Amino acid sequence: MRNNVIVGQSGGPTSVINSSLAGVYRTAKENGLGTVYGMRNGIQGFLEERYVDLSKHITSDLDIELLKRTPSAYLGSCRYKLPEIHENREVYDKIFSLIDKLEIGYFFYIGGNDSMDTIRKLSDYAIVTGHPCRFVGVPKTIDNDLAVTDHTPGFGSAAKFIGTVTKEAIRDGLVYGNKLVTIIEVMGRNAGWLTASVALAKGEDCGGPDLIYLPEVPFDVEKFVAKVKEIQETQPSVVVAVSEGICLGDGRYVCELSDAAEFVDAFGHRQLTGTARYLCNVIAAEIGCKTRAIELSSLQRCASHMASRIDINEAFSAGGAAVKAAIDGDNGRMIILKRVSDDPYQCTTEVYDVHKVSNVEKKVPLEWITEDGTNVSQEYVNYCRPLIQGEVPPVMVDGIPRHLYFKE
Amino acid sequence: MRNNVIVGQSGGPTSVINSSLAGVYRTAKENGLGTVYGMRNGIQGFLEERYVDLSKHITSDLDIELLKRTPSAYLGSCRYKLPEIHENREVYDKIFSLIDKLEIGYFFYIGGNDSMDTIRKLSDYAIVTGHPCRFVGVPKTIDNDLAVTDHTPGFGSAAKFIGTVTKEAIRDGLVYGNKLVTIIEVMGRNAGWLTASVALAKGEDCGGPDLIYLPEVPFDVEKFVAKVKEIQETQPSVVVAVSEGICLGDGRYVCELSDAAEFVDAFGHRQLTGTARYLCNVIAAEIGCKTRAIELSSLQRCASHMASRIDINEAFSAGGAAVKAAIDGDNGRMIILKRVSDDPYQCTTEVYDVHKVSNVEKKVPLEWITEDGTNVSQEYVNYCRPLIQGEVPPVMVDGIPRHLYFKE
Repeated sequence: MRNNVIVGQSGGPTSVINSSLAGVYRTAKENGLGTVYGMRNGIQGFLEERYVDLSKHITSDLDIELLKRTPSAYLGSCRYKLPEIHENREVYDKIFSLIDKLEIGYFFYIGGNDSMDTIRKLSDYAIVTGHPCRFVGVPKTIDNDLAVTDHTPGFGSAAKFIGTVTKEAIRDGLVYGNKLVTIIEVMGRNAGWLTASVALAKGEDCGGPDLIYLPEVPFDVEKFVAKVKEIQETQPSVVVAVSEGICLGDGRYVCELSDAAEFVDAFGHRQLTGTARYLCNVIAAEIGCKTRAIELSSLQRCASHMASRIDINEAFSAGGAAVKAAIDGDNGRMIILKRVSDDPYQCTTEVYDVHKVSNVEKKVPLEWITEDGTNVSQEYVNYCRPLIQGEVPPVMVDGIPRHLYFKE
Repeated sequence: MRNNVIVGQSGGPTSVINSSLAGVYRTAKENGLGTVYGMRNGIQGFLEERYVDLSKHITSDLDIELLKRTPSAYLGSCRYKLPEIHENREVYDKIFSLIDKLEIGYFFYIGGNDSMDTIRKLSDYAIVTGHPCRFVGVPKTIDNDLAVTDHTPGFGSAAKFIGTVTKEAIRDGLVYGNKLVTIIEVMGRNAGWLTASVALAKGEDCGGPDLIYLPEVPFDVEKFVAKVKEIQETQPSVVVAVSEGICLGDGRYVCELSDAAEFVDAFGHRQLTGTARYLCNVIAAEIGCKTRAIELSSLQRCASHMASRIDINEAFSAGGAAVKAAIDGDNGRMIILKRVSDDPYQCTTEVYDVHKVSNVEKKVPLEWITEDGTNVSQEYVNYCRPLIQGEVPPVMVDGIPRHLYFKE
């Protein structure tokens, strides 16, 4: 009987991608499925026959709890795009021969748009060839740019960390009462969801950032400088958040205005970094005040010490829902999150046809950005706030969070 | 009766400088002293007659708890160096006339080396003029470079945050199994205490950073590249920590090798920043692999969401001990921390003559740095580990830590 399971992780990690892995593992075990295999480094590692029996690695309920609190991808990840079936059938033959060898009936893949594309292609191949294995995807990305789902697991925890450190940086900026412009650079590529989460810093005890620039709106350097000057007439410390992906009216990334050498890595890939530093230099030259660039860098995707309980639980549920959907016969599907209610916040999982998922990046609606393009509206905050609620305190050992690490 | 108190904060903030303020306030009240005034922006603000009655601002035990968890300096800080008495007597006349006007008998100043210098000068003036006010300092600095005291309040919390995010970044760097060099840049100017705290990431579940470069040892770019190459022969992801203040053999800061325009602010002050980015560019050019620069920036001094309980408590105790010392008649003194025992960790406060405090930066002992200058020894870890123990969970409101903010 074809009762075994394989699960993989793909794309950029999040603080909770391992909670989805825990959800798949636990639910598969609870529902009496067979061996649960894990691919090392996603489909790329699987093609190299690198996989493990997860029960040898996740051996206790404590391991499950640690896994939920462990950042990065426990199994390792990859950035591998499956070729189309007609382009390279051998890849598919290889994958399905391994699936047969391991007697796998259930294939789960935790990832973003590209991973859902992998699920689509593999399930298409299975349907065409009459193969019995079922393929279901579990969404994740801190960028929150996946269509169809209300939000993506991973986004809430990144937003919670960003909101928290933004508030701390705002407080820090007030310390001397001197003129200071702090520019915080946030990930998210061409979607502003994550950058907008700096607005969560605002509350009874904090005014929030003064300016928020998302990639959804063209950025104008002169207007930006004018705006900072205007704000500094009434307060010395100005805190600005910029998305790494903000673009000029002509479509160039703002970070391209800086020293180009810094933004192309060894493979010629453009790194969207340096926007905050560049704008700090502009402010220093134009206004002559002290500046500080804060790049949140990879911390924002791996700061599991400040993960959102809602996010960890939803990530776990999404993994579990994928297993249940596959048991129920679903194939070529992904799990999505459906918000039932805002207040009180209620959210359920649903099953969605991966064929209907377009590869379009979901952007922040323009209605949620203020008219002058320098802040987000209350609607955004109402949307995002429920996703950062609650904490899952790290298991602290000797003063530092304990993780579950993969032992070869 | 001259029974009133004034307290100020000075220099760069820490996550726990407000816990010392809470300690001063609470202990003054408990010991029946009079009005507790707070200087706004330290002695600089005091000279401008900006001070407040703290009981109007700290109104409940909950406020005390929030204050302990609030980063940055609640009262605002300054970087103001008192002139010598013979240079400018008017400044002293002004300060002491305000002290008389407010009937202040106890003057507390929370800060680093410069603040202790302020305590020294003011107490000297009081002694010379027969003024009855007593002056006691409370140490703080994330850099841990103050002599005499075993460590400084503020250091442990910064070290805990740095150890935590370093571990998360190490985990993140392993995700693709690709060649990657991550360089984490840590504060501390010319002392390596804080940079060395990345070593706390090492544990049963984490190998810790691969290379740690402190300013105590001259940095050699070629040897660094060779070392990275050597490590990459056996593992693809290499994590390096560098102090912002590492210098070449000829005394130049490594960050000076980069584009100079970025490292001089509008006032011509050198900002020690860009070391990680510069070294990433060197690695990309020499080795051709992907790199990532992580500047922890001001987060490391304001991430109170990951503060150490030991540190918060010691900061509070140091504030309280200053009040008790002043009541006991001490003048021209500072509170120091004295480690009584390593295991179990025990630490007490003592009173120290500020005249004996030299302005020398306390550095990491060379015996605590490995012979090749690329790591720290177990002695350092044994010294630092007790200081990061325990947490004080933030008071979370709507998913974000609540602070006590100063209402004008």
